[in-house]
Amino acid sequence: MSEISFQTIKRETAVSIPDELVFGRNFTDHVFEMDYNPAKGWHNPVIKKYDSLSMDPAAMVLHYGQAVFEGLKAYKQVDGKIALFRPEKNIARLNNSNRRMCIPEVDEKFVLKALLELIKVEKDWIPTKEGHSLYIRPFIFANDPFLGVKASDVYKLMIILSPVGPYYPEGFKPVPIMVTEDYVRAVRKGIGECKAAANYAASLMAQVEAKKLGYSQVLWLDGVEQKYIEEVGTMNIFIQLNDEVVTPMLNGSILPGITRMSTLEILRDWDYNINERMISIDEVMDAHYNGRLVEIFGTGTAAVISAVSKLKYRDLEIKFNENEAGELSKKLYAELTGIQYGTKEDKFGWITHLD
Amino acid sequence: MSEISFQTIKRETAVSIPDELVFGRNFTDHVFEMDYNPAKGWHNPVIKKYDSLSMDPAAMVLHYGQAVFEGLKAYKQVDGKIALFRPEKNIARLNNSNRRMCIPEVDEKFVLKALLELIKVEKDWIPTKEGHSLYIRPFIFANDPFLGVKASDVYKLMIILSPVGPYYPEGFKPVPIMVTEDYVRAVRKGIGECKAAANYAASLMAQVEAKKLGYSQVLWLDGVEQKYIEEVGTMNIFIQLNDEVVTPMLNGSILPGITRMSTLEILRDWDYNINERMISIDEVMDAHYNGRLVEIFGTGTAAVISAVSKLKYRDLEIKFNENEAGELSKKLYAELTGIQYGTKEDKFGWITHLD
Repeated sequence: MSEISFQTIKRETAVSIPDELVFGRNFTDHVFEMDYNPAKGWHNPVIKKYDSLSMDPAAMVLHYGQAVFEGLKAYKQVDGKIALFRPEKNIARLNNSNRRMCIPEVDEKFVLKALLELIKVEKDWIPTKEGHSLYIRPFIFANDPFLGVKASDVYKLMIILSPVGPYYPEGFKPVPIMVTEDYVRAVRKGIGECKAAANYAASLMAQVEAKKLGYSQVLWLDGVEQKYIEEVGTMNIFIQLNDEVVTPMLNGSILPGITRMSTLEILRDWDYNINERMISIDEVMDAHYNGRLVEIFGTGTAAVISAVSKLKYRDLEIKFNENEAGELSKKLYAELTGIQYGTKEDKFGWITHLD
Repeated sequence: MSEISFQTIKRETAVSIPDELVFGRNFTDHVFEMDYNPAKGWHNPVIKKYDSLSMDPAAMVLHYGQAVFEGLKAYKQVDGKIALFRPEKNIARLNNSNRRMCIPEVDEKFVLKALLELIKVEKDWIPTKEGHSLYIRPFIFANDPFLGVKASDVYKLMIILSPVGPYYPEGFKPVPIMVTEDYVRAVRKGIGECKAAANYAASLMAQVEAKKLGYSQVLWLDGVEQKYIEEVGTMNIFIQLNDEVVTPMLNGSILPGITRMSTLEILRDWDYNINERMISIDEVMDAHYNGRLVEIFGTGTAAVISAVSKLKYRDLEIKFNENEAGELSKKLYAELTGIQYGTKEDKFGWITHLD
């Protein structure tokens, strides 16, 4: 792989980050980009001005959706250092997604380096307000202008950056979720466990209908029996019972979240009895009625921890922590964001600092 | 909806169609395009030069795969007329896909008109050689530069055209297929029944592995039990038994093919005993060993009819019609292509002529 070419622009004025940041709507001045074709492999790595792409209308991604992505964040820590949270895990997962979606693998060390170099160029774009960060979006898409259904020969990898505010601007408030039995997101032996664009397309309709009914996320059941819980919206889910904390085991149709993995490691360190196992929606509902259910929360990069206020399943709606997140959600949120923003010790060695 | 704006170019030389046409690799001079946003609805319909798109790297289709498409063909008939095969069915299906994928519906009459106008402009691009045609690809993709996971606010619809040769250049030859149990394409309550980009992304890996083993297509089983046959590659499938012709019933995870529908109508007209029902792979294998299996074929726009030479399931491989397509495949292929090219009577009224 050749060296990264720096085609940076000189800013005419200082970076000015909008006060009110909507998630994923503002972008920084530069992108990282590299291309793939069978003759050259991944080539032409460049950091250059954020600009429109020139794209053939026959580009395969527009027709057959062959695309994968990642999402992570850079944080301005309290001492002014710039921190990334387990970025190597995201790049490793990108390659897992690549393999499943027939996209050529990337050199993980090189992409991580490119990502860090891009953030160095854009460091003035990292917001400093509490709960703010710079969202990092690496993605790869099929770029061959060809209408035959097959894996593309040509790809583009890009990294774009978006300064973002806290996911819940109104504060760390629990949200209502509903179980969908009308829609299935993924099934074992499908592509549910990889971060493919296609999974998100498949999730839209259920989300629209949940919103209409006043719920902010969908709780997905497994595709085979529609019995076991899998994910909530685009997050992993955790159920705290009296004597254990459960998260669905990775079964092929669940995304292996990096916040999920980190949450498990923290809970293990805190001596919680944690179990990655199958857990049915009936067990969750019964646990509530039997007084065993303590709290439910989602984990993901965007919201970090998302506490659940109530859960609708068929004609039943169970409520808990309606006005305030549960104890464990709050503790985990404080721990994870503390590590990210540098107010808590990075005892697991999860932080990569920009030097 | 405003009138179509014609921004056509003057060709400097006559249209020259390559002798050797690879499917989906050559495109004509013009495209149809229109845009959607919530304020204007679908607007700015235009026929203009085929050119690169200018696309924001954050355009939602690149991240979340919200896109749908259609595929149909225009034929130069033996008397010189230009014919389309049931184009209104494709546009109706486009709207079905739109609804499932949270994309705003189109005015079907208007899109059909736009499609016919585009073909008029590009009529010199329709190949005249036997088995050749002009492939028509309408598609819609999410175009909002936004990284939140939700249905896009902004879309683009395009129609592009590609002159194509016969799907099997070596002639109407049966192809080997294999059942996959390692991969699942779709599951009921998912998006399998709509022509979403995401379904094709999900199918790539199985196809790659089948090719490696010497099979040209994958036979997909249902996502729940992995027991019932669903589709073959990107085609619908028909099984001729001694006393009936079976095609899997539309169950939510099978694409309702227009060639499938037409095949059923022809077979009904020919007084075949046809059944749209669930049919297990075990039943197909047993039928072969009991002497009940006559032939298997796929139906789709690209190949029209694709006869099957052999079928691999687990350690078994059954062979039939190895060197030559079966009788029914040949009859159906002749009938369908006869109607399309105008050598057979269009008794069902399926043809739309360009006036």
